[in-house]
Amino acid sequence: MAFLGIDLGGTKLALAVFNQDGEFLCASKIPLGSRTGREVGSLITGEVRKHLDEKNGYCIEAIGLSVPGISRSKSGTVWAPNIPGWHDYPLLKEVQEVAGGIPVTMDSDRACYILGEAWQGAARGANDAIFLAVGTGIGAGILVNGTVLRGAHDIAGAIGWMALGRPFQSIYKSCGFFEYHASGTGITNVTKAVLNATPRYTGKLKEIVAEALTAADVFEAFVQDDIVAVKVIQLCVEYWGMAAANLVSLFNPEKLIFGGGVFGPAVSLIPSIQKEAAKWAQPIAVTQVSFQPSVLGDKAGVYGAGFLALKSVSAQPVNENYV
Amino acid sequence: MAFLGIDLGGTKLALAVFNQDGEFLCASKIPLGSRTGREVGSLITGEVRKHLDEKNGYCIEAIGLSVPGISRSKSGTVWAPNIPGWHDYPLLKEVQEVAGGIPVTMDSDRACYILGEAWQGAARGANDAIFLAVGTGIGAGILVNGTVLRGAHDIAGAIGWMALGRPFQSIYKSCGFFEYHASGTGITNVTKAVLNATPRYTGKLKEIVAEALTAADVFEAFVQDDIVAVKVIQLCVEYWGMAAANLVSLFNPEKLIFGGGVFGPAVSLIPSIQKEAAKWAQPIAVTQVSFQPSVLGDKAGVYGAGFLALKSVSAQPVNENYV
Repeated sequence: MAFLGIDLGGTKLALAVFNQDGEFLCASKIPLGSRTGREVGSLITGEVRKHLDEKNGYCIEAIGLSVPGISRSKSGTVWAPNIPGWHDYPLLKEVQEVAGGIPVTMDSDRACYILGEAWQGAARGANDAIFLAVGTGIGAGILVNGTVLRGAHDIAGAIGWMALGRPFQSIYKSCGFFEYHASGTGITNVTKAVLNATPRYTGKLKEIVAEALTAADVFEAFVQDDIVAVKVIQLCVEYWGMAAANLVSLFNPEKLIFGGGVFGPAVSLIPSIQKEAAKWAQPIAVTQVSFQPSVLGDKAGVYGAGFLALKSVSAQPVNENYV
Repeated sequence: MAFLGIDLGGTKLALAVFNQDGEFLCASKIPLGSRTGREVGSLITGEVRKHLDEKNGYCIEAIGLSVPGISRSKSGTVWAPNIPGWHDYPLLKEVQEVAGGIPVTMDSDRACYILGEAWQGAARGANDAIFLAVGTGIGAGILVNGTVLRGAHDIAGAIGWMALGRPFQSIYKSCGFFEYHASGTGITNVTKAVLNATPRYTGKLKEIVAEALTAADVFEAFVQDDIVAVKVIQLCVEYWGMAAANLVSLFNPEKLIFGGGVFGPAVSLIPSIQKEAAKWAQPIAVTQVSFQPSVLGDKAGVYGAGFLALKSVSAQPVNENYV
């Protein structure tokens, strides 16, 4: 048995064929380049055809799709803010049309991250686990009693909007408080603000043109004890700790997994984040959770998509309720 | 068919017998008085015996228990901080021993609040709904896809510990940030602090001895535009709005129900809370949720306990998976 996992990102498409034990049979990555709208859909359906038609030495039994935004479970359409024209894109239907009748399942990237980690990564075997994805933006994939939390309209896990300090300011309007302060973009935002407020600072970050500043620059300066970088990252640790505490108090999970581009360089800060979270969280629940870095890294999405595919097939003939 | 719902509070025991349509056949309340430990258990088992043995004109087919604290689902024991000696009290077993073989089901009060409202109250028919209980303390009963969110160890919904403003202060250590600022106890805490910081204030709240001050006094002064009360309650509205926003962004619920002793007098503030939440929350999710006051008020727990009982019986003979 083989399963095709497809992870659509804002800039690239990742594909992997898995066996049922979660081993890669093959994998590939394709940059989206300048593709928009239906061109992105065509890229995906073209790749699906290749994997189904070619004599690859495996036979795909199901397909899973991970999409960057909202996967609308009722309509099978996608809202993906980073792909022009994808406000309500009928991806599930397009892939089903070329899939020759095999099951196709779709979910959001954050849902796939936690499913991937629960299948083959840091949350293996956990029924109550959360993936906190901190990259350009921030989102959370939340597993409740073994099932992805979707909410009434598939938007659950929008933790970038978590309010962590009053009063409200208009700068939070487009992305949310937590994302404004503690995402990859947030780290550069806050660094620029601190640099503007620290005219006497003559360190390394001053040399970088504001427009070119990245979170990676800030982490590099942080490791070298740059005072601006230390201030910015310590503030991030507080916010990551508070958000983690809020997840622990609300969900009482077994595992909290930190991933996305920022973890990455912030992985070494996880013990400090846990220490901060322990101050704020429900005191028993915080002793019952393990804080861990993602094991699958940038492959979490494609693993999750592979698991969606596996589950869609294994759930059909061996549903315990119907045996 | 009749069902016995039992709602144990910190100071009283409420009982109600329901038919399957959720109508009261009879109801009673008994103060706990000075009872502690096993005396509280005996009170409950005594009442169960009465309801089962007497010729009441109904036949109890199942019992549901709502308990104030943690209902440990694996052991059937209870941690109830307000009942001396109830660190790990074997209530489920004790009630089962006198129940003559009929099903007995137990859950936390916050779980029962949302189940009660979903069965017969403001969340009727909703699969994704949250009850925010603001009284002496703060907790949340969370319904995810029709099922109560328990977490890995039955502590989920501990929203009194929600972090909503840095830096951490030691005053949050015993109860959590949100509960410190915005529970019934919190309202009196904050009022005392504002009074101390406002020596020129000569209003009504000054006349009340600090130890005797209650949240009800503050609401009464608020209605009369007392400047200290207005400041305190406006701050609460901000925190209630931020916490509500965080629930909306994380859970994407259909309904958010405000209950507990404080809602009550704070019911008229729900539109202001919704307005505050709309600033912070994921902007689509916040348009998909309805903010509502509890319909069942202080009967939400006993309704939820009744529903636990009903569900335990109706799930047995007519479980769709086994038909």
